Amino acid sequence: MTERILYDYFRSSAAYRVRIALNLKELDYIQAPVSLVKGEQQGAAYLALNPQGLVPALSDNGVLLTQSLAICEYLDEAYPDTPRLLPLEPVARARARAIAQSIACDIHPLNNLRVLNYLKGELGVGDESRNEWYRHWITQGFAALERLLADTAGSYCVGDNVTLADVCLVPQLFNARRFAVDLAPYPRLVAVGEALERLPAFAAAHPSRQPDTPPA
Amino acid sequence: MTERILYDYFRSSAAYRVRIALNLKELDYIQAPVSLVKGEQQGAAYLALNPQGLVPALSDNGVLLTQSLAICEYLDEAYPDTPRLLPLEPVARARARAIAQSIACDIHPLNNLRVLNYLKGELGVGDESRNEWYRHWITQGFAALERLLADTAGSYCVGDNVTLADVCLVPQLFNARRFAVDLAPYPRLVAVGEALERLPAFAAAHPSRQPDTPPA
Repeated sequence: MTERILYDYFRSSAAYRVRIALNLKELDYIQAPVSLVKGEQQGAAYLALNPQGLVPALSDNGVLLTQSLAICEYLDEAYPDTPRLLPLEPVARARARAIAQSIACDIHPLNNLRVLNYLKGELGVGDESRNEWYRHWITQGFAALERLLADTAGSYCVGDNVTLADVCLVPQLFNARRFAVDLAPYPRLVAVGEALERLPAFAAAHPSRQPDTPPA
Repeated sequence: MTERILYDYFRSSAAYRVRIALNLKELDYIQAPVSLVKGEQQGAAYLALNPQGLVPALSDNGVLLTQSLAICEYLDEAYPDTPRLLPLEPVARARARAIAQSIACDIHPLNNLRVLNYLKGELGVGDESRNEWYRHWITQGFAALERLLADTAGSYCVGDNVTLADVCLVPQLFNARRFAVDLAPYPRLVAVGEALERLPAFAAAHPSRQPDTPPA
C-alpha cells in the first residue's frame, strides 16, 4: 500500500503548489503540518528529514523529495498514467516551465517569510517599506507574465490544458491578494486564475481549507 | 542550417548555466551580449524579444526560450542524442532538479543585481550590509547543500555523471568567491566544483572567457 506524506504548511506557496499537483495527479496523501510561524522547520526532527529546513517535502513510499517544482515533475514522471502536468512537445514544455520558473525563481523567493524576517530583523526595514518590497517584485513579475501569456494562454497559462505554470500561478495570485496588490493591470492572469480556482484540484488545495488552517 | 543565438552577459549566473549546458550538449551557438550594467536588458529592442527583460534568452531556430533551467531542460529534451543533463530514473532526476532549484530558487534570486540595486537605492542599505545579505543567503544555502550532497554526490553532485545540478553549482561557487565567502565549511561543494571546473564544457563557459568580458 502506498504511503505518501506531504510535509506541509497551509500558507506556504511552495506547499500549495505541491497540494495542487498531487490533486491534479489524483494521488492520495497524508498531510503532516510543519508550523513555519513556530519555526518547526528548523527543529531537529524536521532537519533530520529535510536538511534544507524548508517546506514542502514529500515522502513517497519512503523516498524523501524536496523543492516544489522538482516534486511536481517527479510526480509527473513517476505517475505518467494520471493527467500530465507538462505537455509532451519540447517547446510547449519549455513554455510551461518558463512561466513556472518566472514565478518560482523571480517572484516568490523575494517574498518568502525568511526574507521578510531578515529585512525586518537584520536590516531594520519598517512595515511599509517591507510591503512595498513585496509588491514591487510581484508587480514587476506579473507585468512580464501578463505579456508572456498573450502568446501562450488559452483557457489556462499554456493553451487549454492545465500545466505546471498554472500550479504556480494560483498560489502567487493568492499571495498578491493577501498583500493587497492591485491586479487590474493583469487581466489575463486574473482570468486564467479564476478559471483555475473553479477546478476541484485547486479549490481543495486552498490555504483556507487545510488541516492546519487556523479557525476563521 | 541551425541558428542558435544566446542572449548573454558574461557575469550573469543564469547565462553562465546555459553556456555550460550548451557546451555539455555539444551544441553550437552565437553569443549576443546584453549589458546588464548599461541596462540594455530593459531597452526596447531586448524587451521586444524577451518581455521579462532578463538574461539569458536562447533563440533556437527562431523559437525564443527564456528561464535558464527551462532552457537547459529544453535542450536535453529537444536534443536527446548528445550527453544527458538529467539521469533517466525519476528519483535521480528529482535529486538533480532539487539541487539545481535549491540554488536557482533559494540562493541566486536573492543575490541578483536587480535585488542588490533595490536594497541600495530604495532601501538605502549600505555596502557592508549588502555584502552581509549576499553572504547570508549563500552560506545558508550552501550549508544545506553540503548536507544534501552527503547522500547524493559521487564525483559530481549526483553520482558520477554531470547533471543539471552541476550546471547550477559552478556559477554559484563563482559568485561566492567573488564576494569572498569562506568556503572552508563546504568541502564537498568545493571538491565537486574543482572536478567540474576542469571539464572543457565548464572551462569554456567561465565569465573570464566570454566575448563581452572586459579586458583584465
